Amino acid sequence: MRTHHRNQLAIPPLYDYEPWQIKEKSFSIANNHRNEAIFSLGNGYMGVRGTFEEDYTGPANTSTPGVYINGVYAAEEIFYGERTPKQPELSQTIVNLANWTKINLFLDREKFDMLTGELIEYQRVLKLKQGVLIRHLRWRSPGGKEVEITVSRFLSLPAPNLGLINYRVKALNFKGKISLVSMIDGNVKNHHHLRNPKALETRETILAKRVAYLIQEIASTGISVGMAMVNQLQDQAGNLISGCFSAPGEGVCQEFTFELEQGTEINLNKYVACLAIRHADSVQLSETIQLAVEQAVEKGYGQLLKEQGLYLKDFWSDADIRIEGDPASQQAFRFNIYHLLQSTGRDGLTNAAAKGLTGEFYEGHCFWDTETYIFPFFLYNKPEIARSLLLYRYHTLEQARLNARRVKLTGALFPWRTINGEEASSYFMGSTVQFHIDADIAYAVKNYLAVTGDQQFLYDYGAEIIFETARMWADRGCFIELRDDQFCLNEVCGPDEYQPGVANNCYTNYLAKFNLEYALEVFALLAEEAPDRLAELKERIDLTADELELWKKAASNMFLPYNRKLSIHPQDDSFLYKQTIDLDSIPVEEFPLVEHWHPLAIWRYQLIKQADVVLLMLLLGDRFSLAEKRSNYDYYEPRTTHDSSLSPAIYSIIASEIGYDQDAYNYFKQTARIDLDNYNQNTEQGVHLACMASTWMVLVQGFAGMRNYAGTLCFKPYLPGNWQGYQFKLKVKDSQLLLKIEGEYAFYQLLKGPAIEIEHDGQRLTINNGGVKVLIGVK
Amino acid sequence: MRTHHRNQLAIPPLYDYEPWQIKEKSFSIANNHRNEAIFSLGNGYMGVRGTFEEDYTGPANTSTPGVYINGVYAAEEIFYGERTPKQPELSQTIVNLANWTKINLFLDREKFDMLTGELIEYQRVLKLKQGVLIRHLRWRSPGGKEVEITVSRFLSLPAPNLGLINYRVKALNFKGKISLVSMIDGNVKNHHHLRNPKALETRETILAKRVAYLIQEIASTGISVGMAMVNQLQDQAGNLISGCFSAPGEGVCQEFTFELEQGTEINLNKYVACLAIRHADSVQLSETIQLAVEQAVEKGYGQLLKEQGLYLKDFWSDADIRIEGDPASQQAFRFNIYHLLQSTGRDGLTNAAAKGLTGEFYEGHCFWDTETYIFPFFLYNKPEIARSLLLYRYHTLEQARLNARRVKLTGALFPWRTINGEEASSYFMGSTVQFHIDADIAYAVKNYLAVTGDQQFLYDYGAEIIFETARMWADRGCFIELRDDQFCLNEVCGPDEYQPGVANNCYTNYLAKFNLEYALEVFALLAEEAPDRLAELKERIDLTADELELWKKAASNMFLPYNRKLSIHPQDDSFLYKQTIDLDSIPVEEFPLVEHWHPLAIWRYQLIKQADVVLLMLLLGDRFSLAEKRSNYDYYEPRTTHDSSLSPAIYSIIASEIGYDQDAYNYFKQTARIDLDNYNQNTEQGVHLACMASTWMVLVQGFAGMRNYAGTLCFKPYLPGNWQGYQFKLKVKDSQLLLKIEGEYAFYQLLKGPAIEIEHDGQRLTINNGGVKVLIGVK
Repeated sequence: MRTHHRNQLAIPPLYDYEPWQIKEKSFSIANNHRNEAIFSLGNGYMGVRGTFEEDYTGPANTSTPGVYINGVYAAEEIFYGERTPKQPELSQTIVNLANWTKINLFLDREKFDMLTGELIEYQRVLKLKQGVLIRHLRWRSPGGKEVEITVSRFLSLPAPNLGLINYRVKALNFKGKISLVSMIDGNVKNHHHLRNPKALETRETILAKRVAYLIQEIASTGISVGMAMVNQLQDQAGNLISGCFSAPGEGVCQEFTFELEQGTEINLNKYVACLAIRHADSVQLSETIQLAVEQAVEKGYGQLLKEQGLYLKDFWSDADIRIEGDPASQQAFRFNIYHLLQSTGRDGLTNAAAKGLTGEFYEGHCFWDTETYIFPFFLYNKPEIARSLLLYRYHTLEQARLNARRVKLTGALFPWRTINGEEASSYFMGSTVQFHIDADIAYAVKNYLAVTGDQQFLYDYGAEIIFETARMWADRGCFIELRDDQFCLNEVCGPDEYQPGVANNCYTNYLAKFNLEYALEVFALLAEEAPDRLAELKERIDLTADELELWKKAASNMFLPYNRKLSIHPQDDSFLYKQTIDLDSIPVEEFPLVEHWHPLAIWRYQLIKQADVVLLMLLLGDRFSLAEKRSNYDYYEPRTTHDSSLSPAIYSIIASEIGYDQDAYNYFKQTARIDLDNYNQNTEQGVHLACMASTWMVLVQGFAGMRNYAGTLCFKPYLPGNWQGYQFKLKVKDSQLLLKIEGEYAFYQLLKGPAIEIEHDGQRLTINNGGVKVLIGVK
Repeated sequence: MRTHHRNQLAIPPLYDYEPWQIKEKSFSIANNHRNEAIFSLGNGYMGVRGTFEEDYTGPANTSTPGVYINGVYAAEEIFYGERTPKQPELSQTIVNLANWTKINLFLDREKFDMLTGELIEYQRVLKLKQGVLIRHLRWRSPGGKEVEITVSRFLSLPAPNLGLINYRVKALNFKGKISLVSMIDGNVKNHHHLRNPKALETRETILAKRVAYLIQEIASTGISVGMAMVNQLQDQAGNLISGCFSAPGEGVCQEFTFELEQGTEINLNKYVACLAIRHADSVQLSETIQLAVEQAVEKGYGQLLKEQGLYLKDFWSDADIRIEGDPASQQAFRFNIYHLLQSTGRDGLTNAAAKGLTGEFYEGHCFWDTETYIFPFFLYNKPEIARSLLLYRYHTLEQARLNARRVKLTGALFPWRTINGEEASSYFMGSTVQFHIDADIAYAVKNYLAVTGDQQFLYDYGAEIIFETARMWADRGCFIELRDDQFCLNEVCGPDEYQPGVANNCYTNYLAKFNLEYALEVFALLAEEAPDRLAELKERIDLTADELELWKKAASNMFLPYNRKLSIHPQDDSFLYKQTIDLDSIPVEEFPLVEHWHPLAIWRYQLIKQADVVLLMLLLGDRFSLAEKRSNYDYYEPRTTHDSSLSPAIYSIIASEIGYDQDAYNYFKQTARIDLDNYNQNTEQGVHLACMASTWMVLVQGFAGMRNYAGTLCFKPYLPGNWQGYQFKLKVKDSQLLLKIEGEYAFYQLLKGPAIEIEHDGQRLTINNGGVKVLIGVK
């Protein structure tokens, strides 16, 4: 394997390798920006970056406060220097919402600020089991007053509208007046992408009884966002202290002023309910959030925190991964999985953005990352979330149909980047040209069916997606006489974004063939099992017998690139005819090329951004021999820059399959701690959600060698690096399987449901409650 | 030939077919916008659209006033929806300058406005021999006063800073107070492209003695524009009437009020001098224009008009084309040639914009249109202007070097669209990808040398252009093993903009080979004839022997596409493998596709915007057999939309060569009157300068079959359509040749200089003053 240009495998850890938590041991401005992303909280519905409760006075570009609700976006006219027809007119940008976390502390007239006075003790811990972020510190004010402060916050996973903060202050060496000012600060704006600083307009501030509300609206999309807060301040004796409301500027605020005795502590619980509704009736909105916040207060902070822990206990009991002998990776798996849970929408109307809910980069758009990288983890661990991700596509099918019309195609073409289901990219050579997204979604539907057996989903939603995407392919390609009337697809781009506008991208052609074949299979299945549904669907989408014939003909005559001389699958018609370049001859600081080279300077070379043919070797691996996989890997690997964080995991998985264990482990190391080690030096922008998800793929599909091509889970596990063991669980239909690798043995056990058949290293096994212990293959 | 989608060959003429003028016989709002372009005036330095002197009160979008100076532009930040690296940061937009033509007339309190009262008589005539635009009208005011108004205006061709207006008013049925208000109106803005309405800022207005000045600045580019005017008003007796200056708002103004007797006429001469200077000293600027305007006044309007006529007499004596039997085409040739003269810069620092100086469209940018279409006309008629166009490229060579670096190339890459020599396009798939522009410029240099014999130009300027462009090609391509180590060029776009990002575009590869070979030839020539110059140049641009070796190897191993099965030259590696589409199946209203279809919807088909391989058949026609030309024409013609106005002329020329006379004539008809017939329904945006130039190419290279591959003019003339005859002149080195076709005979005559050898239909002839009359071939 080529030495990666960002070879940081040996750097000292940024965070101690603790199994269930991430700890920041001292505060430094230099790390603040990154830690805002690392310590982001989320619950699928909303997210908040790890900014502090008090006002931050550090230098510019060391903090990007961010509060988001999944799918809540603003639209602006896209400016084009030179227009081409049928381009998207409106951008979609996730909006930085009112900051409900704000709490300022005053010791008489001295404002608490870690950048003034003296920070005597500091630590911040993200607790992955409890789902809470806790900051603990001792601070001496410039005037010499010492306080101990402990702040806990969490976004409720079981009640996703709720955000909660517990803020405790203890006077250590003084007695005197203290003020706490808790606010929802609506005077915020996006830090990136939006030109209009007033994308978010304040509609109402209401101060009523113990609840303060802020209602804001994103005029460009008609989305209203309501936030309601209740602050409950108790002294050490448990007496409630009353505060004073105000509505300064664009927010709501409650101020508590009181005398604190030396050695005693006060305790503020802040309850916030957030809700975003399109074209909201503001009365209804404020009533809904009032009810939500009142119910939260009634339960109390302690109970809500307990429920948070119970939710996570349940989650980890399914999703946890255990690694023996590699604490860095152990921590990484859990951290990555935790962020996946935090950022992925689960209501069927929202998705998972490239940066999750941890930053504004990529504008909050979701990509094919969802189906190809994020989906598999949920499929085997939280299939109801996998289902909701597919539902999101179903609910945006109408937009996908219009998107197909935009490029003169029938059927549906899913957008490359989107929030609302419409294409949001203004650069079609980096977006629309990637037609493969249709097949990626079809592939996820098929996988969902295979793993869950949820036939009803297919009847109600999946079939329509499959038919409409197959339609797109049939219209998109054509039978080319000079290629013996094989079905060809030109002007496409495979996963490798460094080769757009090519013909017969191998990945795309194979996946399109898969999509067409699957559509025929689904049609036959529905004809058999749900004829009424099929009849209704056929009529509604006007599906004809001619079309089915075309699908059959296109699928069976699909042009499948192969170069006999080199024994490889050419990435596309032109790839092998391009100039080669030694990656090591490119100065390190010019990577990633996508950020430094003119596109035309990249495209002319055999330069690959990310796994393309090699990804095909994984997704449709049953159609290729091991020798083919090896020669493709050997050919493409030295040409791949891994300039996309989606790349190393796929190379790792195929490296495992073809026996390149060292490559597999090295590539794994480039994905596992991408954010914990700040491998790409840009974690401050937000976490790399799909890359985090790909770590799970490396473990399950790479090290454990899991494949599921024909409905049977097949494994070929081994122990990578210096690991002594690892274990994970998989849900398959009504069953749950545990796989534990220890030393030379693999142990398969059924944890739930009916016994299942699997394959271990080619050997068929029936797994039941007692489990089966087998030798793992020696490489 | 396919019926063209805009088959307007039979529509009634918009302008009478008069040989030396263009006449508007009645005023109508509906035609106003178009006529502003048709009646544009220019002199290479500046231009003014055919707006009226008085304020226009017609509806929106029926007028776009425009006053331009060649090369005077503003820059604005280009906004990118999604950024890719190394894109141009600043736009370049020709600026709509202060309107110096403005003159308002008041009959007491009634303001002259053709849209009020009654327009009893009206005509406007552009006189091509005199170079003047004359409007004559009789108008009855709403109050019943009748006046006769005659306005003549011209931009001086011999003194290009000068604009002149003669404005006469005769009181027909009344006696009374009349006012004339003459201004330079600086309160103007661009109608397109510029976001900033104050791109042009007024710096000074000066009213001194009889001269009024306006100094404005384009802050974004530091270009100052000064305009000075003198108005001289005379009554019928020849007495000067004095006027009153003012500086209202953003302009300068002179008002004359006087009593006019019934039946008498007053006569206003307006003299304006315009000058643009970068980083000007405003005192120097105002002094220069003061001097210029004073000198103009001294000469007087009559004398200046006479000099205009003399300039044109001289011009037409070289450049005129005579057609017998086709008055529509006769008029078109002169009109087109006249516009070429009006819009083409001649100072070596300015060029010819796509719309000339007749509108803001294409932002005033020049393209390859200049070398490939506009240059040939000047080369054979006004070689000093051809030279200045090449000098413009020489003077922007440093920007072209930086442009090459931008895409990681050595040598120089000329920009696709520019004013200042830097690439101004924000859409590289429609610009930078067209690397062929380098070879197009090299081709023009070679042609210039061949036709003028101006070796000094080669030593001083040409060689450096040729070496730097050859360098670019050598670096741009590579020897591809799978193609037997032939030299290939991928990710390019030929002239056909519907196929960008392709490999081995046939046109590009052939032209690159030409460029490399010519560089070697020039090197050898300089080594022989100007060794000192060569030594200096080699050192300055660091040219090595290795490079020359590479040029030789690249040129001789250039991959030259040919498909034996189809006996055609494939347009590129992918073209023949794309889907075919019947052009007649596309609804007429969807043409031009570039304005209605998503680029990806176009690119997937065998769809051609404009002559590509067929243009190659013209430019390097000596490298292809007649049979090859015919099969290429037959293959590509049905696939060509002619969505570019640069296309039909080329098809016409090759159709003539291969004996498709009807095609040749039909395609000619689509170019000749493109603006006079408003063929593309967008003449209001400005004239189609390169298309106008291509008409000349059709006559000389198509109908007369002129080629000049080896330094000898070869002809193969015939009579197209119902023509009875035609004639034109060509300057070649120190000689001038007349070619006259009448009936079955061609008559060649030497008008100036030494006798020259030509070829007529393969037969070598020596042409001297007496001339040679020969039979033309019968087709």
